[in-house]
Amino acid sequence: MAEIGSTVRAKELLAFCVRVFEEMGVSSEDARITADVLVQANLRGIDSHGVARLARYVNGLRDGVMLARPEEEIVVETPTTVTFDAGAGLGQPVSHRAMRKAIEKAREYGCGFATVRNSNHYGIAGYYAMMALEQDMIGISTTNAAVLVVPTFGRDAMYGTNPIALAVPAGEERPFVMDMATSTVPRGKLEVYHRQEKSLPLGWATDERGVPTSDAAQVLDNFVKRAGGGLLPLGGAGEEFSGYKGYGMGLLVEILSAVLPGAAYLTSVYPKDSDGQPLPADLGHFFGAWRLDAFRPAEGFKADMDKFIRELKGGNLAEGATRIYVHGEKEFEMADQRGEHGIPLETKVEASLKQIAADLNIQYDL
Amino acid sequence: MAEIGSTVRAKELLAFCVRVFEEMGVSSEDARITADVLVQANLRGIDSHGVARLARYVNGLRDGVMLARPEEEIVVETPTTVTFDAGAGLGQPVSHRAMRKAIEKAREYGCGFATVRNSNHYGIAGYYAMMALEQDMIGISTTNAAVLVVPTFGRDAMYGTNPIALAVPAGEERPFVMDMATSTVPRGKLEVYHRQEKSLPLGWATDERGVPTSDAAQVLDNFVKRAGGGLLPLGGAGEEFSGYKGYGMGLLVEILSAVLPGAAYLTSVYPKDSDGQPLPADLGHFFGAWRLDAFRPAEGFKADMDKFIRELKGGNLAEGATRIYVHGEKEFEMADQRGEHGIPLETKVEASLKQIAADLNIQYDL
Repeated sequence: MAEIGSTVRAKELLAFCVRVFEEMGVSSEDARITADVLVQANLRGIDSHGVARLARYVNGLRDGVMLARPEEEIVVETPTTVTFDAGAGLGQPVSHRAMRKAIEKAREYGCGFATVRNSNHYGIAGYYAMMALEQDMIGISTTNAAVLVVPTFGRDAMYGTNPIALAVPAGEERPFVMDMATSTVPRGKLEVYHRQEKSLPLGWATDERGVPTSDAAQVLDNFVKRAGGGLLPLGGAGEEFSGYKGYGMGLLVEILSAVLPGAAYLTSVYPKDSDGQPLPADLGHFFGAWRLDAFRPAEGFKADMDKFIRELKGGNLAEGATRIYVHGEKEFEMADQRGEHGIPLETKVEASLKQIAADLNIQYDL
Repeated sequence: MAEIGSTVRAKELLAFCVRVFEEMGVSSEDARITADVLVQANLRGIDSHGVARLARYVNGLRDGVMLARPEEEIVVETPTTVTFDAGAGLGQPVSHRAMRKAIEKAREYGCGFATVRNSNHYGIAGYYAMMALEQDMIGISTTNAAVLVVPTFGRDAMYGTNPIALAVPAGEERPFVMDMATSTVPRGKLEVYHRQEKSLPLGWATDERGVPTSDAAQVLDNFVKRAGGGLLPLGGAGEEFSGYKGYGMGLLVEILSAVLPGAAYLTSVYPKDSDGQPLPADLGHFFGAWRLDAFRPAEGFKADMDKFIRELKGGNLAEGATRIYVHGEKEFEMADQRGEHGIPLETKVEASLKQIAADLNIQYDL
């Protein structure tokens, strides 16, 4: 485990992040949305997508590859669909607006979908899908991402960890919230194994020849050098464990998130200019909402979701297992715990926040 | 490989199946649709879902768990959504009508979705998703299914192989058509290994304790005895290879296909009466269509899909690999080949068709 420093209150962490974004020129509303997406990731225990990334956003805004005041616009709209051009702004605020639009359209017509192009990293996919929950709607969200994953039978990484999130309301039970990368594991998991000097299970990643490897250092080094290899799709290498299905899910996400709105796709994301300097990432996202009562009365649906969740959780356990989970449970439990006791920051993350504060000449009071 | 008997023309196989369904009391239109879904599966090389299943439909219709002339009705409808009650009829005709409705709604509003409850096995998911292609729409289809798959950390099978299909138009290239079960492998693959007396790779299935096993005979026997164990979700057992992601995809399908329209879900599908006699299956399905030009001009989208497909296929190969595939390619190539040279029937399947013809006193002329 990484070394843990201070434990901070979500509310104070949020206020600090808002301040940082405002200081970078982001509007108050957009700063609040972006900060909330980050802090919610920490609350839910997805620390890789929380304030650990704040420095990257600050650097992106400073370097001009992310714009604090983008010219965001709607480029296509129908009664039930809309496509935004994010104007190279932060991914979170445009995504929040896109999902709100999808929800509004679903309220009026039964379902609604929104896509976004010319965007940046949008944080956790589940945040946007979950916006549908309080509206008695099912929410979905996907995004493409930096190139890290190899296609089945391919040598080189050609697409991203491309997450898919689905949020489904229940009645008395907590909602079903699935939020998963379509690769077997994320890059961050390789970094953890590397720090701990552990061998990777064969089926997580491939080396520069495209062959499964247990050597985390080599895979990470190959990423930097673009030497080949990368993360494997869910299901692993080749066909034995049906890795082409994880590869298919990754492409589904790439098509809906990026090809559909006209964003960059596959290896064209995060382009560079002729001097090798980074240009705006041109990522794409996909959002949708289905009103429950557009298919059946909402109360009946939610009562069935309760039964559905209870039946799964009450199933007989495999030998050696202690619990059957339903997606979202772990994160809700973590959010309860961190909401009460605070969010523990890794020493390294805490140092990065202090550095940001120092650079921006604002107070670090967490 | 199973022993191969005659090779038959698709057109003749279709005519035979239509005749069989008509003989069972199914309307001409419904017979044609159902037969077409079966024969298309054979043409595309998905023989497990082709005419090998004809006897099951005939038996279902004969035993009254599938109704030849169901009271099918629309129970909920909004501008963009609709829910059908299939009235325990065949899954294929109602699914064809549901997908047509989704497409009509998409044409008018941008996107459209349809769910079906009180239905039966609907054949290949990809058939319905592909109906969107010629409309310049993206199509999606999912269904729940007989209980065969264990949840992560669970001992007993609690849901089905729950396929998801997505069909996406391209320009000059053939469409992207993904059609995949969310389990690592289907039951049929275990049967093949059993016949060949091969050991299962650990990660396909679990035994009655919920522990991964290489013994196909044991898993198949446990299915019959309902003794525990079953197929593993994509990603395998436990968390090492992220089997909870395949489990999550399976639940996503179960929710959209079954809980959303109010069909039976999890272990409630294929119910039996108090004497142990089968009742209608009450399966559920989900269909959707998004118009391309509801998000961006269709020509631009299709030109990008061509580039997308070509980039993937042109990627560098992993050591030992011969080709990078894009989803649907293998099936289109098989359909070309079988369209030209005919569909080879397994001896066992051919015998079952002859038996059906004899039972119904119709001519077998394939």
